[in-house]
Amino acid sequence: MFKLKTTDEKCKARRGELETPHGTIQTPVFMNVATCGAIKGGLSSEDLEEIGCQVMLSNTYHLHLRPGDKLVYDMGGLQKFTGWKGPTLTDSGGFQVFSLSGLRKIKEEGVYFSSHIDGKRIFMGPEESMQIQSHLASTIAMAFDECIENPAEYNYTKRSCERTVRWLERCRAEMDRLNAHPDTINKGQMLFGINQGSTYEDLRIEHMKAIREIPCDGYAIGGLAVGESAEEMYRIIDAVEPYMPTDKPRYLMGVGTPQNILEAVYRGVDFFDCVMPSRNARHGNVFTWNGKMNLCNEKYARDARPIDENCNCPACRHHSRSYIRHLIKAKEALGMMLAVSHNLYFYNELMRKIREALDGGYFYSFYQKYHNLLAERNPD
Amino acid sequence: MFKLKTTDEKCKARRGELETPHGTIQTPVFMNVATCGAIKGGLSSEDLEEIGCQVMLSNTYHLHLRPGDKLVYDMGGLQKFTGWKGPTLTDSGGFQVFSLSGLRKIKEEGVYFSSHIDGKRIFMGPEESMQIQSHLASTIAMAFDECIENPAEYNYTKRSCERTVRWLERCRAEMDRLNAHPDTINKGQMLFGINQGSTYEDLRIEHMKAIREIPCDGYAIGGLAVGESAEEMYRIIDAVEPYMPTDKPRYLMGVGTPQNILEAVYRGVDFFDCVMPSRNARHGNVFTWNGKMNLCNEKYARDARPIDENCNCPACRHHSRSYIRHLIKAKEALGMMLAVSHNLYFYNELMRKIREALDGGYFYSFYQKYHNLLAERNPD
Repeated sequence: MFKLKTTDEKCKARRGELETPHGTIQTPVFMNVATCGAIKGGLSSEDLEEIGCQVMLSNTYHLHLRPGDKLVYDMGGLQKFTGWKGPTLTDSGGFQVFSLSGLRKIKEEGVYFSSHIDGKRIFMGPEESMQIQSHLASTIAMAFDECIENPAEYNYTKRSCERTVRWLERCRAEMDRLNAHPDTINKGQMLFGINQGSTYEDLRIEHMKAIREIPCDGYAIGGLAVGESAEEMYRIIDAVEPYMPTDKPRYLMGVGTPQNILEAVYRGVDFFDCVMPSRNARHGNVFTWNGKMNLCNEKYARDARPIDENCNCPACRHHSRSYIRHLIKAKEALGMMLAVSHNLYFYNELMRKIREALDGGYFYSFYQKYHNLLAERNPD
Repeated sequence: MFKLKTTDEKCKARRGELETPHGTIQTPVFMNVATCGAIKGGLSSEDLEEIGCQVMLSNTYHLHLRPGDKLVYDMGGLQKFTGWKGPTLTDSGGFQVFSLSGLRKIKEEGVYFSSHIDGKRIFMGPEESMQIQSHLASTIAMAFDECIENPAEYNYTKRSCERTVRWLERCRAEMDRLNAHPDTINKGQMLFGINQGSTYEDLRIEHMKAIREIPCDGYAIGGLAVGESAEEMYRIIDAVEPYMPTDKPRYLMGVGTPQNILEAVYRGVDFFDCVMPSRNARHGNVFTWNGKMNLCNEKYARDARPIDENCNCPACRHHSRSYIRHLIKAKEALGMMLAVSHNLYFYNELMRKIREALDGGYFYSFYQKYHNLLAERNPD
């Protein structure tokens, strides 16, 4: 059940709560990406609690291939398997099928593709995706859709969107069947539908109107941050948002920079996820309230300060820029681990401050203060 | 100051305490290897406290090349740089100069070699090694020696040992000079001499007799576990131990398996270090009181038990064999991190139990119970 608590007076930003079988999610929220059931960089489920994570996101495609969703089911589902006690979300596998696997063939029934691990031929359609996610027993399952790269051809996008609507109907029916099945671990598994339509406003709106007729626990905007500019992304959110149900959470998939997130909250989005915090950490890029800094820069070699003097993350509480820089340059696992901790903490903290601003009625001034400060530049 | 508390009645095992400027070390002790100033696998200084580490060991050669000992000095020494608050030990750089670097040339004054990172020509002699370790400000510095691979030629070994004695005299003089210097961070830095002599008992004894005349805070047996069998190693310890001062700690460098350690404690050794816990972890090999097990084995795929049901390490308290196995197979950093945590905890716990047995006067029966159980085999 989603409860919309407040909407900002000067923009579309929303403060809400999603009750789930695994706990209540305070929105806006950033979901921490644990692709294969663990955060890249070596953070454990206990570390996730410490850095303020609310929702752990895992990838259906990866877990289906390894260790196998049946194994995760046998071990009691994602929560028991990983030790993460809060809500989880699994994507549908669709995005990875289209971006990672080779030799794919899309048909009405689903997608034939080959595993990026061993090349094995695999079929995945809406029913298979729901079955796998039911095995994983995530709190929220995502609908199986086709994620098209931008730019995309208009007519292809239109036909693909129509098929995605039919796929969502099949997802809904299959999830209902699974949730009623006695062997299912999480019988209250939620389903989010996904809006597509590339950068065509009319297709986006038409598709949103169609999928909102299929009862889901939330609706996502998919197929953005896949090649188009940030301005195009904001234009599409602005176009489609008025057609999204207000009483359901909205999830902007795979987005983005701190600035992107603030802009999307401003436009009425509630859920986010992105690999940016961990991917940036690998290269020594860490986020601060004054923008991004690269620790590999020579000027931090003897800098005894923490990454961010106002940050309370495990890296900033105990370690210096100098030490973390050394570890990253020496390719020590601890360097990556500390940088990922910091970046995820920063994202979770950004969302907490956004919620606080919404609760306190000052989101618009918060937005005005930070939407440029958060843009990429090198502080100090 | 080393205080010998008890010696076992039936064997040479010793229970002692080494007071240092950075805290008291309870012996026998296993030192946890943080080559570049961080444990391989991503454990932080806070994690080290949790797994019962007493001494962190870092490598002079690695830190000299990266980030540079001058940088560590500028940051206040190893403790401040890494955040590890307990005692530290640095090796002399000698072992790595001989095992890692290319194109080395040994002369009376020291060793000319090229960096394994960028090929740069570097010179290191006894004075340079002491200066670097003084910069690092470790609690215990190791003497600069030549570590010869086994088997070694008799006459070469004899000449090398004679040079190593002359090098120790130079180390002692330089360390005294540095400890009296106003700019030195740790003015109470300790120095351990190193016994060499390959597998020749007469050379080992002759060398030990020579170096014990040079006042050191402890004496190490070096040049073992470098190609010879475990039996040869035990034979050499048995031969040289009667010539080691009883009022100084003894350190068997780079050793070894849990069984090796128990056998060496039995023979009168107090200090140990080894990369085995982390190197094994990388391949899914974890230590238990019933021997080593390989988590990659298919039979653990659905095993919900912790690695060791009687273990209280962070990995065993929170995670299953099944999950850790999956992470290691998927090459997730967390898998390595958990396996290293477990293995180091196991080593630290082994030493704690050895000390407890010595304190309780039942070490000999402890030794009899475990010296075969700890041998390598696959439990369950």
